[in-house]
Amino acid sequence: MQNLRAMRVAVAGLGTVGTGVIRLLEANQALISRRAGRPIEIVAVSAKDRSKDRGVDMSAFRWMDDMMKMPACEDVDVVVELIGGSDGPALALSRATLNAGKPLVTANKAMLAHHGLALAELAEKAGIPLKYEAAVAGGIPVIKGLREGAAANEISRVYGILNGTCNYILTTMEKEGRNFDAVLDEAQKLGYAEADPTFDIDGIDAAHKLSILSSLAFGTQIDFDSVDIEGIRDIVAADIKEAAALGYRIRLVGMAENTETGLFQRVHPMLVPMDHPFAHVDGSLNAVLAEGNFVGRLFFQGAGAGEGPTASAVVADLIDVARDEYGDPFAMQIAHLDIQSKADSGSRIGRTYLRFMVQDKPGVLAEIAAAMRDAGVSIESLIQRGVNADGSVILCVVTHHCAESTIGQTLANLAGSDSLVSKPLVLHILD
Amino acid sequence: MQNLRAMRVAVAGLGTVGTGVIRLLEANQALISRRAGRPIEIVAVSAKDRSKDRGVDMSAFRWMDDMMKMPACEDVDVVVELIGGSDGPALALSRATLNAGKPLVTANKAMLAHHGLALAELAEKAGIPLKYEAAVAGGIPVIKGLREGAAANEISRVYGILNGTCNYILTTMEKEGRNFDAVLDEAQKLGYAEADPTFDIDGIDAAHKLSILSSLAFGTQIDFDSVDIEGIRDIVAADIKEAAALGYRIRLVGMAENTETGLFQRVHPMLVPMDHPFAHVDGSLNAVLAEGNFVGRLFFQGAGAGEGPTASAVVADLIDVARDEYGDPFAMQIAHLDIQSKADSGSRIGRTYLRFMVQDKPGVLAEIAAAMRDAGVSIESLIQRGVNADGSVILCVVTHHCAESTIGQTLANLAGSDSLVSKPLVLHILD
Repeated sequence: MQNLRAMRVAVAGLGTVGTGVIRLLEANQALISRRAGRPIEIVAVSAKDRSKDRGVDMSAFRWMDDMMKMPACEDVDVVVELIGGSDGPALALSRATLNAGKPLVTANKAMLAHHGLALAELAEKAGIPLKYEAAVAGGIPVIKGLREGAAANEISRVYGILNGTCNYILTTMEKEGRNFDAVLDEAQKLGYAEADPTFDIDGIDAAHKLSILSSLAFGTQIDFDSVDIEGIRDIVAADIKEAAALGYRIRLVGMAENTETGLFQRVHPMLVPMDHPFAHVDGSLNAVLAEGNFVGRLFFQGAGAGEGPTASAVVADLIDVARDEYGDPFAMQIAHLDIQSKADSGSRIGRTYLRFMVQDKPGVLAEIAAAMRDAGVSIESLIQRGVNADGSVILCVVTHHCAESTIGQTLANLAGSDSLVSKPLVLHILD
Repeated sequence: MQNLRAMRVAVAGLGTVGTGVIRLLEANQALISRRAGRPIEIVAVSAKDRSKDRGVDMSAFRWMDDMMKMPACEDVDVVVELIGGSDGPALALSRATLNAGKPLVTANKAMLAHHGLALAELAEKAGIPLKYEAAVAGGIPVIKGLREGAAANEISRVYGILNGTCNYILTTMEKEGRNFDAVLDEAQKLGYAEADPTFDIDGIDAAHKLSILSSLAFGTQIDFDSVDIEGIRDIVAADIKEAAALGYRIRLVGMAENTETGLFQRVHPMLVPMDHPFAHVDGSLNAVLAEGNFVGRLFFQGAGAGEGPTASAVVADLIDVARDEYGDPFAMQIAHLDIQSKADSGSRIGRTYLRFMVQDKPGVLAEIAAAMRDAGVSIESLIQRGVNADGSVILCVVTHHCAESTIGQTLANLAGSDSLVSKPLVLHILD
């Protein structure tokens, strides 16, 4: 072992994940040498602020003020990009690395969602690895699971709980019966949610990840722009309570399907049946389910974020590179990736939960019932509870199976009605 | 694509998995070509009985009466061994394949448990792949998950529900309140259990798989002989009922730990807390959990057996070979695999469920309580139910945390007692 040359790594970006990678390579050094077949050593690091105390000893590494010089360093074999952001320095460094003919390992889902194809082209041209296990579902090897583990299958559907912050908020609301704002506030204080939580709670982060999973599952070019995205801001404690009474839990689910009308990709809160594995994914855990035509349902669960799990995925990629076990970043040559049109979601058939906040006055139920009838939606169950503090009433409806377009028509029929206190909430029910 | 030479495969053994592989390669041909970078084609097949109708068209393949000639065929690039059995023809063919310098893909856990190391030596010497994803947990990519996905971690514990037949029997007993013999009988009629079910229900199959997982997780040489094995024959419906009342389900768990006193490997039915993911693994599903020092808990679940899932794993291996993405079969060079001594299980600390079938007469409880006291075991809870049809009484005890040796001492203290109608059942409780 000692005779084999180490694989020398430059790490750009020293946030939680970057320091995690440093800590991991130090802690598990001997084991990693055995598994990788040679030592993996950090030689250079870079970040915005050199003076910040990151709690790890970096004296053995060369500090580089200009990370853009990393790819050209003779003693750098691999660059690890942990800067974040879809464009800017992360993208520039990634391009420069691949253009220099050096392997790139990244955890950057936003960059991959927007520029994954272009970066994969550079990697393919140079015949070098572009690895990104940490970009989706943290420590769970789900990129590998789809790219390799399930590779023999035609995948009909891949879906997951892809954002730990949302899952923490939803499951905390569930356990404690509290409302969204209060739990978000607490999550921010505890460091489970960012000061600006938009990317997480509005579903954008999950959508980045979903677009990557979709490409791997279906052999299509990443198409982030066609992901329909809806976050969790509008969920109230009462929705979770009503869902539970009906036998469901609410989870933010990113779902992609290969349909006859094209590629369906959507991030949205869903009602998940109690006996579905997702109903037991609690706190900041992530989970992914893939349905293959031979393997059936494959389910992966683990920590979706955090220093340790994400570093674990980054270093797994480094080990693959050290072992020389890598290939096309998106499971096949770019020339073979399909370009799929966006599916028509209106024709999708399913059951739906509709929640209305309505005025407590005669005729409201008749109005809503008529709007549903006129749209052709039939009702499976309906619950109306007592009056809220503000005088409004919560009305929850579960529909029979119907086309999504008829739900849209129901809402259109009710548009402008002064019986509604707020915009109705529509949650699809996971089959 | 058309210009790339196909990877040509010989399949030995045409049982469920063999015909599944044929079906899969036919059904997903185009997709697999894209993912593997070149077509994967079967050229030759072999099995004991040529005349048997297997429901697949094999006219395009060369039938070989003597499978031992496969490795030498010029048009065979890879041999897939699906014969089964730890020795005999499976082992002979596997050796011959690797000795001929050709890649071997196998689903044979018994052979790997006994001869995995010797086969890996041949593969290492020749620098060719030995792949066996299908040997453990069917379609779930758990070999890859440990070998690659979790490779950056020191794994402290790997454990799983590794036998679908046992899980089907236990969960059916649970749902229907029936006894072991009746459910096994039905499972055999339905084809879920073999005519001779010994390997499955006595835990040997799970132990084969566990010894493979252990090697990958801990970087040790496979050591099947040191696996402690206990099956599910002694579980009665009442145990499942009492466990449920206590908040547990019973699952056959294969568990391996890297402990200070050595390698702990055991297959045994355990009490699994309701909030543990294993409690929701039903029917013939399999599941594996690995605990890494950075990634935390990684959980994999899916179909552990059957034509489709197992074929999916076999073909995933073929795709890895076609892509040239492979390395050391047991994650590292054989010279780096440790040899671990067997751990002392007596010093293991845990809570235990003890079930006694006792005579309905005065003094029995005092006798058992004294045996536990004398062994130093303290009781957390105790349930005694009414009298069985044969006049015996069921007495269930859950202990506080104690060393396993004290449980052994309790049983020794009771040995020969005529208060006991049958051997006491000991089930450890999963933490």
